[in-house]
Amino acid sequence: MRTVDLITKKRDGGELSEREIYDLIIGYTEGTVPDYQMSAMAMAIFFQGMTPEERAHLTMAMVRSGDVIDLSGIAGTKVDKHSTGGVGDTTTLVLAPLVASIGVPVAKMSGRGLGHTGGTIDKLESVPGFHVEIDNEQFHRLVNENGVAVIGQSADLTPADKKLYALRDVTGTVNSIPLIASSIMSKKIASGADAIVLDVKTGDGAFMKTLEESEELAASMVDIGNRVGRRTVAVLSDMSQPLGYAIGNALEVKEAIDTLKGAGPEDLTELCLTLGSHMTVLAGVAGTMEEARGLLEQSIANGKALEKFKTFLSAQGGDASVVDHPDRLPTAKYRYEVPAKEAGFVSAIAAERIGTAAMLLGAGRATKESKIDLAVGIVLQKKIGDPVNAGESLAVIHANTEEVRQVFDEIYTSIKISRDSVTPPSLLVGEIS
Amino acid sequence: MRTVDLITKKRDGGELSEREIYDLIIGYTEGTVPDYQMSAMAMAIFFQGMTPEERAHLTMAMVRSGDVIDLSGIAGTKVDKHSTGGVGDTTTLVLAPLVASIGVPVAKMSGRGLGHTGGTIDKLESVPGFHVEIDNEQFHRLVNENGVAVIGQSADLTPADKKLYALRDVTGTVNSIPLIASSIMSKKIASGADAIVLDVKTGDGAFMKTLEESEELAASMVDIGNRVGRRTVAVLSDMSQPLGYAIGNALEVKEAIDTLKGAGPEDLTELCLTLGSHMTVLAGVAGTMEEARGLLEQSIANGKALEKFKTFLSAQGGDASVVDHPDRLPTAKYRYEVPAKEAGFVSAIAAERIGTAAMLLGAGRATKESKIDLAVGIVLQKKIGDPVNAGESLAVIHANTEEVRQVFDEIYTSIKISRDSVTPPSLLVGEIS
Repeated sequence: MRTVDLITKKRDGGELSEREIYDLIIGYTEGTVPDYQMSAMAMAIFFQGMTPEERAHLTMAMVRSGDVIDLSGIAGTKVDKHSTGGVGDTTTLVLAPLVASIGVPVAKMSGRGLGHTGGTIDKLESVPGFHVEIDNEQFHRLVNENGVAVIGQSADLTPADKKLYALRDVTGTVNSIPLIASSIMSKKIASGADAIVLDVKTGDGAFMKTLEESEELAASMVDIGNRVGRRTVAVLSDMSQPLGYAIGNALEVKEAIDTLKGAGPEDLTELCLTLGSHMTVLAGVAGTMEEARGLLEQSIANGKALEKFKTFLSAQGGDASVVDHPDRLPTAKYRYEVPAKEAGFVSAIAAERIGTAAMLLGAGRATKESKIDLAVGIVLQKKIGDPVNAGESLAVIHANTEEVRQVFDEIYTSIKISRDSVTPPSLLVGEIS
Repeated sequence: MRTVDLITKKRDGGELSEREIYDLIIGYTEGTVPDYQMSAMAMAIFFQGMTPEERAHLTMAMVRSGDVIDLSGIAGTKVDKHSTGGVGDTTTLVLAPLVASIGVPVAKMSGRGLGHTGGTIDKLESVPGFHVEIDNEQFHRLVNENGVAVIGQSADLTPADKKLYALRDVTGTVNSIPLIASSIMSKKIASGADAIVLDVKTGDGAFMKTLEESEELAASMVDIGNRVGRRTVAVLSDMSQPLGYAIGNALEVKEAIDTLKGAGPEDLTELCLTLGSHMTVLAGVAGTMEEARGLLEQSIANGKALEKFKTFLSAQGGDASVVDHPDRLPTAKYRYEVPAKEAGFVSAIAAERIGTAAMLLGAGRATKESKIDLAVGIVLQKKIGDPVNAGESLAVIHANTEEVRQVFDEIYTSIKISRDSVTPPSLLVGEIS
């Protein structure tokens, strides 16, 4: 079938076969299907959607377009976790050592990415000496010995997805659930995951702004995973305000350490225990969610989770003493309190804008070439529902510049204070498996 | 605004401004808007449509993308006629001399095109010596002196439309009424028309297969024309069977001559009188349709229309004696009768398939490079509703080959015979102004 016939078929609401999707995606990767046909197809998919079968075929076609990581040399069920963006999301830093400490192998391939703060690798590089330039053999050995390791992405994973994403970005076709779901799932599967726990954010600071859309995306990803033989669970969590208090690279590492010590923010701790329990059950290390949660809480309480974090950092060249001496992490030159202008209750903390404020300080990357300042960021002092007095600190800005006028403005615009008391939003808003 | 924002706006049902459409189309013509963005936009338009204002802006943007013919040196209101394709459509050959004979100036720019038979120029070239290689000055002089001339398309008219049409053809976005309507109208306006009569076909042999779609297309074109200051009228006519009897280049010239003599097929004559009356009224040569029709009928009856055809042919180098001696037109080597296999009434003549049969004989062009055989084609002997005896001729094949098995098959597949009597379809099915 000619590509134009495939476009017309989809345009008119037809279903593409596995073979048709495979030909399209491989042809696109190799350049025989030109961009202008692929963008018309993406727009047709935007309007007509894709059936569950089509989504699974698209995911696997993108997986097959490039390298696939073989983790079979690592014992046990490899469970990967994926968070769909968000602001101040420190879950990976907490979860990797936490679940590893109770015997769930964590073989994490990670990137740097664009966004309000850096990716997991950037954050970990706040720890002096830590690096991810390890070879595959070393990676496998570390996971087998310590239960956890992180490696940078070197293989050519899902080139079709990379090419298609760049095209969607300039043709108004990013916002299509079948395309988003297959993009995320293809990357996880190509990275070698046996099972997948999805942390799907919803609300202002998330990619999906409404619960309905977030549920649809989560359901689609879970369906794809289960169809292609990867047990998949999704947890939906609130991102109407940032997760935890810290937004910034070293600041989030410190928050992760606090959480592994049992003294972290309540929401971050709860989300990590929930996601971690699912990972533990999927890995077969516990039979039930209750059992899994018990193991994880115990590991935090008896210090094993923290110990695992130290082992992990040391094994990859990091100075593990930062765990006991967080002041050895990169520190910003200036701190500015952001005092409340009035008394009342915090009614909103627009996560997206707080993220923008952190970006203005230099915590994130606007383009691939941007340099990240690991020390800077924002530490919230209040969360939604908290009472606040006039003049009391709402947030602390960690900056390496004195030009922070715009950052103050963004924070004041983000944080709303009401006279009436406010019920804090629920953190966990749904679960799909 | 960035192109991706324009695509997103249209995707979400928004209306593009005149400026936005202009920037898009001129950017596309110049290459700053790439094909992959334009195809995504075309697909978004396919789904979201365009408002009447957007369609008019798109039309004029395409007109401005290239040359615009200046016909101001020709006296009177220049009325152009456009037929939306069809099979055996000989209207232009009849109309040009017919309306010119009563004082409606016809300054026709024409092409060759692809299709079942050639374009107007190919058909006219059946007349020995006739050519359209005249310069602009000569063209104007001939119209001013004789009231009629045909010139080949040499200027760079609507390059945006050409580029967009080629893109739509390979991206599943041909079948969009706003895009079809603006494409047709832009070409007519760039050709210098002051007013436009549209001959919109409907049914099996037409581009638009249903009356509803044909009406929608006609209404959109009329609306565009009137919005941009070109009085426009559309006549909807049946194309469930071929128009007239002849399908083939020289065969259609002969049919046109018969019609100008008052001895043409009833349907072709009626359609030409209707379209011609509209042209006459729009040109201001008659005040009412009735008056216009009277003038045209009179011109056929008193031989002036036929005389004008001779003048027109001679003025462009053609041998006008073919009008009195049609055997001087190119003639095919073989004639084959297609006898009816059973008695009854003709209930269907699938126009599209008859066109394909003519194409198999060599009457049309599949690609720009194909050579046309001007002599070959098919002359129907029956139309829908006609009674037929077993063995009686349904059609005559004019061929330059003895290998006509497939042509016979196509004709037999096209023509259905029923036992019960059949009411012939109405030719004129609607009018929009």
